[in-house]
Amino acid sequence: MNGCFPSILLLIKRLISSSEMLVSSFRISSASISLAKSSSIMDFSVVPLMAASILAFLHSSSFILKLVILSIQYYTTILLEIFKSLMFTYLLCIVTERFGKLLYIVCIYSFIVVLMLGFSIVCSGCGSVYPADKPINVCFKCGGALLYKYDFSKIGFGRDVFSGRFDSFWKYLEFTPLKSSSDIVSLGETFTPIVKLESDLAYGFHNVFFKDDGRLPTGTFKARGMALAVSVLRGLGVSKFAIPSAGNAAAALSAYASRAGLEVYAFMPRDAPLSTLRECVYMGAKVYLVDGLINDCALIVSRLKDKYGWFDVSTNKQPYRFEGYKLMAYEISEQFDWDPPEAIIFPTGGGEGVIGLWKGFNELIELGWVERVPRLIVAQSTGCMPLVKAFMDGASEVSEAWPNASTIAAGLRVPKPYASYLILRAIRDSGGFALAVSDDEIIDSMKVLARRGFFMCPEAAASHAALKHIVDEELLDSSDRILLYFTGSGLKYLDLYDLDPLKLPLIPKDASSLP
Amino acid sequence: MNGCFPSILLLIKRLISSSEMLVSSFRISSASISLAKSSSIMDFSVVPLMAASILAFLHSSSFILKLVILSIQYYTTILLEIFKSLMFTYLLCIVTERFGKLLYIVCIYSFIVVLMLGFSIVCSGCGSVYPADKPINVCFKCGGALLYKYDFSKIGFGRDVFSGRFDSFWKYLEFTPLKSSSDIVSLGETFTPIVKLESDLAYGFHNVFFKDDGRLPTGTFKARGMALAVSVLRGLGVSKFAIPSAGNAAAALSAYASRAGLEVYAFMPRDAPLSTLRECVYMGAKVYLVDGLINDCALIVSRLKDKYGWFDVSTNKQPYRFEGYKLMAYEISEQFDWDPPEAIIFPTGGGEGVIGLWKGFNELIELGWVERVPRLIVAQSTGCMPLVKAFMDGASEVSEAWPNASTIAAGLRVPKPYASYLILRAIRDSGGFALAVSDDEIIDSMKVLARRGFFMCPEAAASHAALKHIVDEELLDSSDRILLYFTGSGLKYLDLYDLDPLKLPLIPKDASSLP
Repeated sequence: MNGCFPSILLLIKRLISSSEMLVSSFRISSASISLAKSSSIMDFSVVPLMAASILAFLHSSSFILKLVILSIQYYTTILLEIFKSLMFTYLLCIVTERFGKLLYIVCIYSFIVVLMLGFSIVCSGCGSVYPADKPINVCFKCGGALLYKYDFSKIGFGRDVFSGRFDSFWKYLEFTPLKSSSDIVSLGETFTPIVKLESDLAYGFHNVFFKDDGRLPTGTFKARGMALAVSVLRGLGVSKFAIPSAGNAAAALSAYASRAGLEVYAFMPRDAPLSTLRECVYMGAKVYLVDGLINDCALIVSRLKDKYGWFDVSTNKQPYRFEGYKLMAYEISEQFDWDPPEAIIFPTGGGEGVIGLWKGFNELIELGWVERVPRLIVAQSTGCMPLVKAFMDGASEVSEAWPNASTIAAGLRVPKPYASYLILRAIRDSGGFALAVSDDEIIDSMKVLARRGFFMCPEAAASHAALKHIVDEELLDSSDRILLYFTGSGLKYLDLYDLDPLKLPLIPKDASSLP
Repeated sequence: MNGCFPSILLLIKRLISSSEMLVSSFRISSASISLAKSSSIMDFSVVPLMAASILAFLHSSSFILKLVILSIQYYTTILLEIFKSLMFTYLLCIVTERFGKLLYIVCIYSFIVVLMLGFSIVCSGCGSVYPADKPINVCFKCGGALLYKYDFSKIGFGRDVFSGRFDSFWKYLEFTPLKSSSDIVSLGETFTPIVKLESDLAYGFHNVFFKDDGRLPTGTFKARGMALAVSVLRGLGVSKFAIPSAGNAAAALSAYASRAGLEVYAFMPRDAPLSTLRECVYMGAKVYLVDGLINDCALIVSRLKDKYGWFDVSTNKQPYRFEGYKLMAYEISEQFDWDPPEAIIFPTGGGEGVIGLWKGFNELIELGWVERVPRLIVAQSTGCMPLVKAFMDGASEVSEAWPNASTIAAGLRVPKPYASYLILRAIRDSGGFALAVSDDEIIDSMKVLARRGFFMCPEAAASHAALKHIVDEELLDSSDRILLYFTGSGLKYLDLYDLDPLKLPLIPKDASSLP
């Protein structure tokens, strides 16, 4: 095995660069062991690769080959990494010839620890498992959406602990990939309020509430996903984010990334609303207008991300944002005193909110803290309703993009959501359903809500409009507790509140009566 | 005493209309007694008037005259009320001739109860006291700003009770004029977050925080004042509100009033920003554009309010909004674990925020829950700095309007705040000071903050810009905990984030590299 390495000079060079790896490998390995006692299970960096490649050197069996393949699945830059490891192992074997046996035992032990702890990111499509110590997008095998998987057997406390913590989604830190509060990138996140609607506003139903996520930083629920994604990815060494966006996701990403001192490359259609452009540009994002549609923006990010070293934080194409959205389930459960509502109506475009809720409630069931997942009801626009169609058709996923997608609710304008099978699974598993409302109904709901002091974005209004369908068609029981998810503030969509100031009464300053 | 009443017919008519009054009088009188045991002391409607007028009948001494004068001070519609009372008393005397002595005792007793409990609204100028059971604007004697005065000796719990309540300013209900949670008009109010600034953003200081009130309904701190004002005034029977406004106050009033099903008449200069007009109109306010400035709007409200039956909720011209702002002091104190920061920098136009803070902290000292009032530092714009000038001159109030007031921070554009003596008193009593920053500095701070993920309104940025002056001029100690009050979201002032989208890079959809 000597012949394949060109020169002793290169060997030494590699040795130096690998020495860091040796240190970190054993540090991380021992950390993994100590972590077995704690609640967090997401840190084993180089261990599996080390173990696999060293074992492959020592024994060349099909079992070892599988391990190498598993490593390859995970490491996108696998060739360089393997090469480095091989060099390192080769040197190690020469240098520590007489300690060979000891080394072998250490490696086997590390490997067993890794297996024992389990991998912590799982593909929702094919079940492939990946370690969580490097940034990852989607499953290398099937392209499925990846989800963090936790080992809750190590959680040593009950749900009562949360009442003593400050009301912010960060209070559920143990249930995120973050290890300590110092990893948090925060713009000041508080619980968002839940308000009960009067029955006339709820079309006669008596237990209808809304949750107003317009109170989060940047005014939309996107803050949840981006707060977690930026916090976790900063810890994994990401410094440049890229995102295709028509608006709110880019604004939320810009805010959290700039808070963390990291770069954002945002790609938006050239007709993107000026308000969002203002937010992104002033919050430090490098904004590129694309002479095309949102899917063209997505393609540009895919094509250029390796060239420019960006991490792609597109919707559903990474496991990090879900970890923020899932905390909605924790927050809602605590706010409802751990007896969550019977149904949640969620305005849905890309679907990450619904996936997050579904994941969160299932984790809470696993923890034994809640008893069921609320029925997850997806509200879309009749101008772009791929999920509604797929649900009605009994399809397992959205097979083709919705043609000529068009709705005033920009957040719902997603013709073909990525990993749609997972959204549909969340709906069906929870006993929910999907329905569509027209833009006119959305505008009506915006007006009705505003007239009662609730100034909401059109997506939020869509969930209110959906309630009318539910009442009219008796899809839920009138005594059910139903939570409308209001995903954003109306201040982000002021243009939709159409007004001609010239039609307002103008009075002279010495007016002695109203016109 | 018979001759002065024209006819027996009118007498009977009055009797019928007064019979309600009798019932309510004794109901309220007994309520007052039971209230003596509770924490709330604001309900004795007709009792003092009844007592005074009956006593005036029975004994005509100068002491009784004083009482009548006191009543006159309070009752704007005093003549009609007195007449009604006299008629009623006259009848009562005839009908219950043989119970005269008993009646006398009851009246005296009621009167003593009222005196014992004390009046609950006090003029900050001359000290005149007023009962709190009818809507009131300013002191009838001196025009001073009125403040609620509480009797804390009846509070039977400690500050620890709050940790078990939901984090909203409504958790301090016992310290508001409201009697129960059913009186609350709410749009869902949560605590607003306090975030620590990195020292580079704090010009080298190490303990600088901000509190972001942009997270409240309608995106500004005005929600605090309006939430309380609408809740209290609804309870006092007000159904129509009028407000002269250049923006955010009208939006917040519109939201809370429409939530309560009440009417709003908003008077704005004809160049008011379209965004605010949209908010107000869609939230149901009747908006009138005035061909003049904001002070012309205020004059119209003063002139027409009686004619149309409006209650004027102008800044500092009623005691209700202060009750919302004072809760900032409670919230801040709890968030700082009852050891409030050494200084608070508050962007100030009309000054109700600073007055509220000062009142709140003084109440907390009276309660024994905090030890001192933080130094209250007022930040104004160099384009409109009447308070800074008055403070520097050692004046007790702003004597003349700031000429040609002009600043991009619309909330700071108040040339002559009402009851300015009270703002100056709050500053001086707390050991604070006032300083002005230029619009350029405000814009710089907006940019600097946005670049770090904090998208703020120009008023908020003014408090950050003021910090630079404080650091440069060593006005505070670098170890002091300083709280910058961010009064609103940048989403309300998107126009100020100037951007020409044509200057953004435009790339083709098949781009293979960035320009």
